[in-house]
Amino acid sequence: MFFEAQSDLWSPDNPDGYIALAVAENRLTTELVQQGLQAHGGFPAAMLYYQDMRGIPELRQAIAGMLQDSFMQGVQIDPQHLSVLAGVGAVLDLLFQCIAEPGDGVLIPAPYYPAFDNDLRVRNQVTTLPVHLDSQQQDFAAALDAAAEAAAAAGHPVSALMFTHPSNPQGTLFSRQQLASMMQWCLRRKVHCISDEVYANSVFDESQQFVSAAHLLQQEVRSMEGSQHAGELVHIVFGFSKDFCASGLRVGCLLTKNTGLNKALDNISYFNSTPCPLQWSLSQLLSDKQWLQHYLQENRRRLREAYASVTSGLDAAGIPYTAAPAGMFLWVDLRAAFGGQPGSWEDEAALWRCMAQQHRVVLTPGAACHAAEPGWFRVCYAWTSPGSLPAAVSRIAAAVKQMQGSAS
Amino acid sequence: MFFEAQSDLWSPDNPDGYIALAVAENRLTTELVQQGLQAHGGFPAAMLYYQDMRGIPELRQAIAGMLQDSFMQGVQIDPQHLSVLAGVGAVLDLLFQCIAEPGDGVLIPAPYYPAFDNDLRVRNQVTTLPVHLDSQQQDFAAALDAAAEAAAAAGHPVSALMFTHPSNPQGTLFSRQQLASMMQWCLRRKVHCISDEVYANSVFDESQQFVSAAHLLQQEVRSMEGSQHAGELVHIVFGFSKDFCASGLRVGCLLTKNTGLNKALDNISYFNSTPCPLQWSLSQLLSDKQWLQHYLQENRRRLREAYASVTSGLDAAGIPYTAAPAGMFLWVDLRAAFGGQPGSWEDEAALWRCMAQQHRVVLTPGAACHAAEPGWFRVCYAWTSPGSLPAAVSRIAAAVKQMQGSAS
Repeated sequence: MFFEAQSDLWSPDNPDGYIALAVAENRLTTELVQQGLQAHGGFPAAMLYYQDMRGIPELRQAIAGMLQDSFMQGVQIDPQHLSVLAGVGAVLDLLFQCIAEPGDGVLIPAPYYPAFDNDLRVRNQVTTLPVHLDSQQQDFAAALDAAAEAAAAAGHPVSALMFTHPSNPQGTLFSRQQLASMMQWCLRRKVHCISDEVYANSVFDESQQFVSAAHLLQQEVRSMEGSQHAGELVHIVFGFSKDFCASGLRVGCLLTKNTGLNKALDNISYFNSTPCPLQWSLSQLLSDKQWLQHYLQENRRRLREAYASVTSGLDAAGIPYTAAPAGMFLWVDLRAAFGGQPGSWEDEAALWRCMAQQHRVVLTPGAACHAAEPGWFRVCYAWTSPGSLPAAVSRIAAAVKQMQGSAS
Repeated sequence: MFFEAQSDLWSPDNPDGYIALAVAENRLTTELVQQGLQAHGGFPAAMLYYQDMRGIPELRQAIAGMLQDSFMQGVQIDPQHLSVLAGVGAVLDLLFQCIAEPGDGVLIPAPYYPAFDNDLRVRNQVTTLPVHLDSQQQDFAAALDAAAEAAAAAGHPVSALMFTHPSNPQGTLFSRQQLASMMQWCLRRKVHCISDEVYANSVFDESQQFVSAAHLLQQEVRSMEGSQHAGELVHIVFGFSKDFCASGLRVGCLLTKNTGLNKALDNISYFNSTPCPLQWSLSQLLSDKQWLQHYLQENRRRLREAYASVTSGLDAAGIPYTAAPAGMFLWVDLRAAFGGQPGSWEDEAALWRCMAQQHRVVLTPGAACHAAEPGWFRVCYAWTSPGSLPAAVSRIAAAVKQMQGSAS
């Protein structure tokens, strides 16, 4: 389906072409990164020699500065706690090899990024376990306890809790209190706590406050039960694919104070390291603080504009959605298509087919994201041309109406 | 030791500094690759989008052309059979995950590259098994049979035979008949056959003929028993770290016709892919056939010169070695240090310490390479400054004499 769509995409000259809203790729600001990297294409010959497989010192230093000046908001980062690897997929691959055994359970607040299932299972045979948390609650401990007990009973002792913050697919933020409750739960149960902050530099609603796990770790962890394990158990994952409009860059990072883990990575990072010439270019680009500030602002501005374009269309069409201050996603509620009935996963799949095949607009179904109930879809509004967004909304609305008609 | 040596290296101005002959890195021609890559620092914006994780089509095509024009000598390569990953370490990591179970045995003709033990064991828990083959024999079947039976009896059923050709640490070549005997053995026993050709573009002795497994696969495999399994069982590994003086480039390749394996790699290559901007630069550089031809010639010329410099010194000092037409290594016989006695591994270690600590010349001991008997050392002559090579030989000779004196 996706390949068919790709060969006949919407454009101003092809207004009947497919509109793909299913790719988790931000292309809105790619050209700025392209220009920036090209301007730093030169590199010393030593970049073709063996270097530290966890990342060259220049890049780790530059990333530490970037974190401090952006989403970690002043938290001082020791570059020795940073590993730079071949994408966030590589980071997760090595991380879970080190912290989990095959069959272990990993709790993931759902809905979540569809590919985590493959990412964690295919190489490390870890069992991913969606857990539905009530976003209105501020303390998740009871829900996590229940999920961990059910998992253990099913033969999957939980060794980690992993959450994507800001959320994919919802584009939402956890409150400081919600985050603290998750971290506290992990420390109390001696379970690894993984904060996936791969969208953390894409918080475009300035009225919202993003809180990094690094911030909690510095500010509040001391008051938590089990805080002596925090350095060993808390890991932060992020990268450049999303916030820097560069899925093809394949540069991901792990930030952890866990000494044993970093020592293991000194060895096994050999399998997942990234070219030193490219690391050099990126280090130079990130060290240009003026460029960095401008880039991050401009990227957020374009995300904000695209978001406004979709949501104003959805508002006009009367389609509900979850307000999303961050990321590149919108979680839309198309349950109206089920004609007032609860709807089944088959109904959701039928609606997906109706949109994709008849209306030529391709979304990610909630089922793929382990949604709690049928009828929700993920819209990625940053991959398609911004000009296509009004048409996308019209087509979604038309499909919902059509299904509604056939359902009632 | 190595870090101490690195901070006080030999130079014309520091003639008493350490001479490091233990790093398997060719730096003789790095500046040509640096200049070449920098000249192709530009890339299209699409290189920052998602691309095929097994490598962009442009690079796979360029590599296919490079192979055909260089060490595969006219063999036509289908780019669909090529995977480009984050270094040869990444290739081996994914390959052995797909073709072996934990505990399986892998036969490796010894002496062999010291890091294979870690590379295969640390993530995939495969058991590496040195097998000593008589280089004078043309058919290795009997030796391989015996090794495989011993391995199976020890609980390590052999699932693969892997050989580095040209050899690391010896810099030697297998004859066509020897290679064919190994491939035939694999096909007959339905065991995977992995030819590590990472030094194949570094054959600098023009009187010698390197035979790629790809050449055998095209020319001779049909006459072999079990040839119907060849596409499934034969895999070729190579990369750019060695032949292109670029350990920091982290670009390795797998060439295999195994459909299931390539399909698995379509998925798991996600964990070990390499930045598309860098892939683009490399594709442009390799497509410049004039540059490529000049580079390969010049690299071979510099290797040949460095080799001649060391061997003329060793000849003058009366130190025996294995003639090496390829690679960047020399396998030197320092058994004379044992004063006419067979010598033990402890004696070898003592000689290593004498060289490193008293004479400030650092070699790789044979024990690390699973040598058949004590007293052999690997010399890498392409990392150190060529000007240091005469001094290196004098120091080795002096250490041997000193040990000889204390032994007799």
